[in-house]
Amino acid sequence: VSGRVAIVGAGPGDPELLTLRAVRELERAELVLYDALVSPEVLALAPNAQRFSVGKRAFRPSMRQETIHALMIRAARRGKRVVRLKGGDPFVFGRGGEEVLALRAAGIPYEVVPGISSSVSAPALAGIPVTHRGLAAAFTVVSGHAEAAWRPVLAGIAPRGHTVVVLMGLAARGAIAAFLLERGFAPTTPTALLLAAGTPRAHTWIGPLEALAGFEVPVGLADAPGTIVVGDVVGLSPAALRREAAEGDGEAYAHAR
Amino acid sequence: VSGRVAIVGAGPGDPELLTLRAVRELERAELVLYDALVSPEVLALAPNAQRFSVGKRAFRPSMRQETIHALMIRAARRGKRVVRLKGGDPFVFGRGGEEVLALRAAGIPYEVVPGISSSVSAPALAGIPVTHRGLAAAFTVVSGHAEAAWRPVLAGIAPRGHTVVVLMGLAARGAIAAFLLERGFAPTTPTALLLAAGTPRAHTWIGPLEALAGFEVPVGLADAPGTIVVGDVVGLSPAALRREAAEGDGEAYAHAR
Repeated sequence: VSGRVAIVGAGPGDPELLTLRAVRELERAELVLYDALVSPEVLALAPNAQRFSVGKRAFRPSMRQETIHALMIRAARRGKRVVRLKGGDPFVFGRGGEEVLALRAAGIPYEVVPGISSSVSAPALAGIPVTHRGLAAAFTVVSGHAEAAWRPVLAGIAPRGHTVVVLMGLAARGAIAAFLLERGFAPTTPTALLLAAGTPRAHTWIGPLEALAGFEVPVGLADAPGTIVVGDVVGLSPAALRREAAEGDGEAYAHAR
Repeated sequence: VSGRVAIVGAGPGDPELLTLRAVRELERAELVLYDALVSPEVLALAPNAQRFSVGKRAFRPSMRQETIHALMIRAARRGKRVVRLKGGDPFVFGRGGEEVLALRAAGIPYEVVPGISSSVSAPALAGIPVTHRGLAAAFTVVSGHAEAAWRPVLAGIAPRGHTVVVLMGLAARGAIAAFLLERGFAPTTPTALLLAAGTPRAHTWIGPLEALAGFEVPVGLADAPGTIVVGDVVGLSPAALRREAAEGDGEAYAHAR
């Protein structure tokens, strides 16, 4: 039996941002188990594979993690080349670690192919560097999914000199903004909300932290992945500079890649 | 004049971890300005380009940032397709933001191509997920280059539930370990020191936080990029599990990719 599993990061959505190794794994795959955030253009690179969505997506039912493990293991034991395809990087909130442990326990050969994490690329595609000399010497990435998880993390971050990146942060934007303001972040701290970054639906909002809670989600984007970025580096985005020039406020800018 | 600049992330070193877009930019480049951490195998993908090292490397003189800006701008004004090639991701301690500002100010067309950041891929290649359900709901990336920068960042991180990633951390390993222990991190907190991750010289050390300061750098790796990872996720690395099984301590493990 020569079955094996590659746990592959698909990056932010644009197939051009796949790694060469990810492309090769997809081309040779016989079975692809993919998450909801993986784009159709990326899936098209595995024309010879059976493709199954095991997709997690906010507010929708998804396959149990144990079921995903069982599917991978069964297919590999039947000799299949399996690709477990995840948006972004498999080890950044992708539960890739849990899948690795399951494969190890089952004795299945596996490898992990890193992908471009949206924690860095979503800001980058909007022209925001997560670090910048004089503005941010560090960045912290946290999930906005559970308040019990993000509160203690955000509580330790100083209001200046550090970039905050919240993945899956759309629904919690009001609570997160309120908490940071309460912790001493200036109401004017430059803030970005990046929806569906790296995809054709990408939408960038830039504004002061105090306006984040009032952001209204555009029609059709309620289920898009939303990345919040808070910190002075957001002011380097071309959209922020245009905004400043226009002296507008609360405006939204469509993101041109 | 159709000159332009692409600021391209080269990832951790292995050319297979370049993105498709990075490869295309290199193939079409007429001039490549590269950093010291970019591997020869990656440079070989730009056979038609003039290639200049503008390389920064710990403890060695490097070109001034303003000189790099001037080189890019002059070549683009002469109509050249320039690739500014950086290890990892251009916006993670890569000074890519400064280069973007210089290009914007000069009116040069540019684009930024994200790369796999070693902040996530160095741990991943050693089998360490930076996040993991029940072990770490966040990760913080900071440079070990300047104590004044990392001290306030590390001071805000709770000893559990959060992964610390220190890039360029080799020289400061003793000071960083001492500071975290003083801040309440357990002496047994699983810790990794990853040297030259993603390259053929890769070397992984895994041990308790209290042993980090005593790590002796192997011959030939004193100038390698060193990534420190501190947190319970380090215990998921196969090297950590082998170490536990062997009940050894202070051992080093060569990293097999």
